[in-house]
Amino acid sequence: MTVKLTTKEQINSLLDKYDTFLFDCDGVVWIGNELLPSVKETMELLQQHDKKLIFVSNNSTKSRNDYIHKLNNFGIFNINVDQIVNSAYSTATYIEKVLKLSKTDGKKIWVLGQSGITDELNNKGYQTMTFDDLTKKFPHDELTMDNIDNLIFKDEINCVVVGLDFNTNYLKVGITMQYLLDNNIPFIATNIDSTFPFKNTKLPGAGSIVEIVKFASNREPNAICGKPNNGMMDSILISNNLQKDKTLMIGDRINTDMKFGFNNQIDTLLVLTGIETEERALNEKIITYYTNKLGDIYDLSK
Amino acid sequence: MTVKLTTKEQINSLLDKYDTFLFDCDGVVWIGNELLPSVKETMELLQQHDKKLIFVSNNSTKSRNDYIHKLNNFGIFNINVDQIVNSAYSTATYIEKVLKLSKTDGKKIWVLGQSGITDELNNKGYQTMTFDDLTKKFPHDELTMDNIDNLIFKDEINCVVVGLDFNTNYLKVGITMQYLLDNNIPFIATNIDSTFPFKNTKLPGAGSIVEIVKFASNREPNAICGKPNNGMMDSILISNNLQKDKTLMIGDRINTDMKFGFNNQIDTLLVLTGIETEERALNEKIITYYTNKLGDIYDLSK
Repeated sequence: MTVKLTTKEQINSLLDKYDTFLFDCDGVVWIGNELLPSVKETMELLQQHDKKLIFVSNNSTKSRNDYIHKLNNFGIFNINVDQIVNSAYSTATYIEKVLKLSKTDGKKIWVLGQSGITDELNNKGYQTMTFDDLTKKFPHDELTMDNIDNLIFKDEINCVVVGLDFNTNYLKVGITMQYLLDNNIPFIATNIDSTFPFKNTKLPGAGSIVEIVKFASNREPNAICGKPNNGMMDSILISNNLQKDKTLMIGDRINTDMKFGFNNQIDTLLVLTGIETEERALNEKIITYYTNKLGDIYDLSK
Repeated sequence: MTVKLTTKEQINSLLDKYDTFLFDCDGVVWIGNELLPSVKETMELLQQHDKKLIFVSNNSTKSRNDYIHKLNNFGIFNINVDQIVNSAYSTATYIEKVLKLSKTDGKKIWVLGQSGITDELNNKGYQTMTFDDLTKKFPHDELTMDNIDNLIFKDEINCVVVGLDFNTNYLKVGITMQYLLDNNIPFIATNIDSTFPFKNTKLPGAGSIVEIVKFASNREPNAICGKPNNGMMDSILISNNLQKDKTLMIGDRINTDMKFGFNNQIDTLLVLTGIETEERALNEKIITYYTNKLGDIYDLSK
């Protein structure tokens, strides 16, 4: 039975029981460009109690430093880059630590995605190739389907990464597909969220881009590195020395955040500032606790 | 048991038995820009015997007149537009005859696809709106995600059609998705071929574009108008007065062409000029006859 947090005593036992708090960001810490109420105070409370805070996001379009800037702008300080795990970082970590892809064979990773991904791969010492690189190499009128043979560098590519790319187009997908027609080339997806919350609506998410690539090339990704898939937890475990029974995953989505915790034997806390309702919270076995908002941890502690 | 056509007697009984011949085009009549051997002579033979010839294609990017020009250029004459059924035409026919979408409510069909589709819809008296129309209405720097609210005309759209579009991009898919978030808007797919044969390789097909739209909008198409789906046969039956037991479907793909005939109780002939092999032909119950190439009908008749 899911427990609603409503008393100071419950908050005190939460602080006793867990020493690491994993936070989903959008819908939990902030919504778009607005910090949610009492979140700053909650973070300070947890820091005062020497808790380890880790921010976990499926968004691969931003770099980890972008997250730190965003938190700083909200008045949340003393967060370093190791405390940020996004799907771009977990993809790079997966490729390095699990896939153990060579960095010295002179080959490159083809990326259908944005600089959040290439930055993390380059940070780890991998060379990348993107459609943007082709636009620097070829005049505009040669970047066409008719010229596809010349746009493909099969001997230079040893892996394909697909994530969210707001500039996805037919030719990019077509080029990506050419590499994946070779079953020996690993196909790594950053995450598979079907949509991306944007302003007052939603737009195609990384999962939609992965889906067109999958369908066109008749391939399944060899790994998916975002929540709720294991690649993300592998990255967190590799980067931090966590004790699972002392870790709490806090999120606003049952399908990703709560599943991510539950699948990895980690207790979960659902906040209702995102898309879920109290009714759904009560009926889900994979949720340990729920609360109206993250800031209730501070509000109830007073 | 599938029968291989090898004798003059078999060809004569084929000519006795069937009065309508449905041809898939690419891989059967031509490959790319090359007519296959003895095809011209086969068409003339069938015309001399007063057979009805119908050319059936899933390609929605070309108009039906483009097909006639192509056949004429190959020396195949006396084909009129009623003998051409592509997925663009069958989509327009489906919308008019089965969906019975209003032409007089002042609304438009949003098309993610090329002029083959809008031409057929306009021919039937439907108004259409495409991303190209938006590029005429808005300056380039307003065609962005950030401006998405202004690019959506919900009150003006009463249907969404998705097909192959070599200029598909993220924003087009995002706009299409906005209309489909309203479950009352019908979602019609021209066809669902995952790939499109192009030069010596393959590129994403209409089905891949349909797939990203489906996944992002969490919708299934209300109808699919290409082979092997029923929308295509409905269009052929509506346009022609066919007797199913006197009709033969000729194609090069088991999954689409042979299935299309079989599902509609029409005998099938597989030709091996496309992607299938003799071994697969022999092991498929849905194939009535097979032959090395379409031109064997003429070659064996001599």
